[in-house]
Amino acid sequence: MTDLHRLIRTIPDHPKPGILFRDITTLLADGPGFGRLIGILAERYRSERIAKVAGIEARGFIVGGALAERLGAGFIPIRKRGKLPAATIGHDYELEYGTDRVEIHRDALAPGERVLLVDDLIATGGTALAGHTLLANLGAVVVEACFVIDLPDLGGRARLERAGCPSFAVMTFPGH
Amino acid sequence: MTDLHRLIRTIPDHPKPGILFRDITTLLADGPGFGRLIGILAERYRSERIAKVAGIEARGFIVGGALAERLGAGFIPIRKRGKLPAATIGHDYELEYGTDRVEIHRDALAPGERVLLVDDLIATGGTALAGHTLLANLGAVVVEACFVIDLPDLGGRARLERAGCPSFAVMTFPGH
Repeated sequence: MTDLHRLIRTIPDHPKPGILFRDITTLLADGPGFGRLIGILAERYRSERIAKVAGIEARGFIVGGALAERLGAGFIPIRKRGKLPAATIGHDYELEYGTDRVEIHRDALAPGERVLLVDDLIATGGTALAGHTLLANLGAVVVEACFVIDLPDLGGRARLERAGCPSFAVMTFPGH
Repeated sequence: MTDLHRLIRTIPDHPKPGILFRDITTLLADGPGFGRLIGILAERYRSERIAKVAGIEARGFIVGGALAERLGAGFIPIRKRGKLPAATIGHDYELEYGTDRVEIHRDALAPGERVLLVDDLIATGGTALAGHTLLANLGAVVVEACFVIDLPDLGGRARLERAGCPSFAVMTFPGH
């Protein structure tokens, strides 16, 4: 357990009974902790010639924006339906009840560009997989998908791996 | 006109006829441009002993996250209604039709902390004013509110000034 773990706040029964919600806002609000988090990620990808960091709305924007800037890369937003102003491509994915959709600007990257996919947390991996599909459909080379927190019991990183997308998480919290 | 202006994409008639939408995603996607943007802001606040950067959902998260990391500060999210997991305070503000609400965690900062408020764009200033109110209600010293783009004809920065909040914008686009 790194000392970054201590900066994560656990909120029981949020958003529903039985769920332990892992809240990264307490880590982000801590200047040295936030710096260490971005430092770990920047160190990992320093030599990977990352052209762009794609962050998933909304908490992936905070970590992804900081990481892009630190790597000297561009930043691309992956957003919920109808939020991007120019021409997009989208991908629908299943939730526990119903479906959701993420979108990316069609001209967000050029084929062959080396891209990092970033979100704050991976649980079942539905959103991350959809983000990976969007990047792949634009011809990006997805170097890795990275997360602040992995909930391994929910299997998201294993799903990404089966889809051919390597992944990394700074912290792991067993249990649901 | 800085060369950053050239990286802003203007989308006519979005989100409705007669509006020229200023799209910063083309600037963010440009690694050197994004780095220069954050460099301008970091240079301005380097000696201001900023403890925390408060970013407004969602595009304020990208710029605010990168700026916080560069300044060695913490990051605080100001979010739409119901998005934050722990105890919040909120502030309602008027839109053209109806009202909206922004929220912040009650424990996001300590009274007297020096905070920077960040968003991508200021138009009429309703959201920024509401964010300023939240920070002030928690006892923060709001050093400045900063934006990538100001639309001065819509009067947002003048409203902030009347509320006692100094502000800064990297770029200005006259007209609506």
